[in-house]
Amino acid sequence: MQFGADTAAKGVRERSFMLTCAGRRIPGLLWTPSDNDSPRPVVMLGHGAAGSKRQDYILALARGLVRHRGLSACAIDGPVHGERRADGGTVPGLDFADFVARWSSDPDLIDDMVADWRATLDAVQALAEITPGPCGYWGLSMGTIFGLPLVAAESRVAVAVLGLMGFAGPTKDRFAADAAAVTCPLLFLVQWDDELFARDRAFSLFEALGSTDKRMHVSPGVHAEVPAEEFEASGRLLSSHLTV
Amino acid sequence: MQFGADTAAKGVRERSFMLTCAGRRIPGLLWTPSDNDSPRPVVMLGHGAAGSKRQDYILALARGLVRHRGLSACAIDGPVHGERRADGGTVPGLDFADFVARWSSDPDLIDDMVADWRATLDAVQALAEITPGPCGYWGLSMGTIFGLPLVAAESRVAVAVLGLMGFAGPTKDRFAADAAAVTCPLLFLVQWDDELFARDRAFSLFEALGSTDKRMHVSPGVHAEVPAEEFEASGRLLSSHLTV
Repeated sequence: MQFGADTAAKGVRERSFMLTCAGRRIPGLLWTPSDNDSPRPVVMLGHGAAGSKRQDYILALARGLVRHRGLSACAIDGPVHGERRADGGTVPGLDFADFVARWSSDPDLIDDMVADWRATLDAVQALAEITPGPCGYWGLSMGTIFGLPLVAAESRVAVAVLGLMGFAGPTKDRFAADAAAVTCPLLFLVQWDDELFARDRAFSLFEALGSTDKRMHVSPGVHAEVPAEEFEASGRLLSSHLTV
Repeated sequence: MQFGADTAAKGVRERSFMLTCAGRRIPGLLWTPSDNDSPRPVVMLGHGAAGSKRQDYILALARGLVRHRGLSACAIDGPVHGERRADGGTVPGLDFADFVARWSSDPDLIDDMVADWRATLDAVQALAEITPGPCGYWGLSMGTIFGLPLVAAESRVAVAVLGLMGFAGPTKDRFAADAAAVTCPLLFLVQWDDELFARDRAFSLFEALGSTDKRMHVSPGVHAEVPAEEFEASGRLLSSHLTV
């Protein structure tokens, strides 16, 4: 784990890092308190398609978890996103279709990303300022496409926020097995007017999740219009299961 | 408004009262702080079928609103419930079917109960310890059967919690007009496995609600298994719109 830029603002330290896993470079960010080194549980934040580890809502969520919820947070760029892109993420215009093309053509895409997350979790939890063991996962849309299999596979994930996704897309068949294997407490978010993933398919995914401690919050609006209160609800749930 | 029993416990004063509206006796309860007379907004609590103004979750909700949310609360018995029953509510065994029989046969049932609630609100808001104007409504199942038309008709209702109900039953046709006329912020609760009102009908009702500021929380379990966290979410929403 190689650290790069190290900055701090309003009580939050942000470090960039680079890992490798099976030859893949994994660019990431880690957020911890700037004034307190006692170990805290970490929440993995999975960004959406056409976003990156540094998109607005990931930054806001990470900073809020550190400032108000007694947690730390980390994020990594998804495949074909951010610093993993050939252009380093500097060319605007990557959209959902670019991701879907890769999602449709690369049978290893999901398992590779799950491996990347687990390598990241291993590295981050080896740090003195991160609590080993129970951690959280938060990711919507593409963050659920990768997050659902991750939460199903990784027993350290003790609480999760998923959503903006249903039984749909090239990997929908594997989602059935993944969903059944998810057993941690979780919040599932749905946008009523989601134009990318129809709500009925999201409802079916919610039903299939193996967790007994689960709840679904539905808000009016299209895919990208998740309201601020659901970020608050996310922080509340993550914190309630990871802090004393 | 005639007050009866007046008790206090753990900071909450509970007064029973009796009103009349168009010849109907309306037995109610009012909860306010026992140690503070400064005016507070009131939340009307509508109980469910086979319950009463004094059923466990109404008492718990009322006390929580007074103790932790800066609010006051009131509840009245629904028709054929509690002290409105010929037996005074002392005979156990009234069940949902008894209510449905009346719901099916009395075309004035809903409008009468709406009038009873409005008379109650007038009387309660005339008290020095209750803020006039904006108030809240909370009611699930039968509490929504009566509450949806009330919230639609009564402009003082500034925030509402409804749910465990859909486009169903003898009065489902009027619900369409009522739903469109509801414009206040609201939380709508659904139980995924609701055996009385199918979730698809509840989803349709949620969609038809005229409010732009609305959210739906869905929990696993049957009709009566609303989890504690949704009572917390109720208190949070009511308080956020009624207190400064």
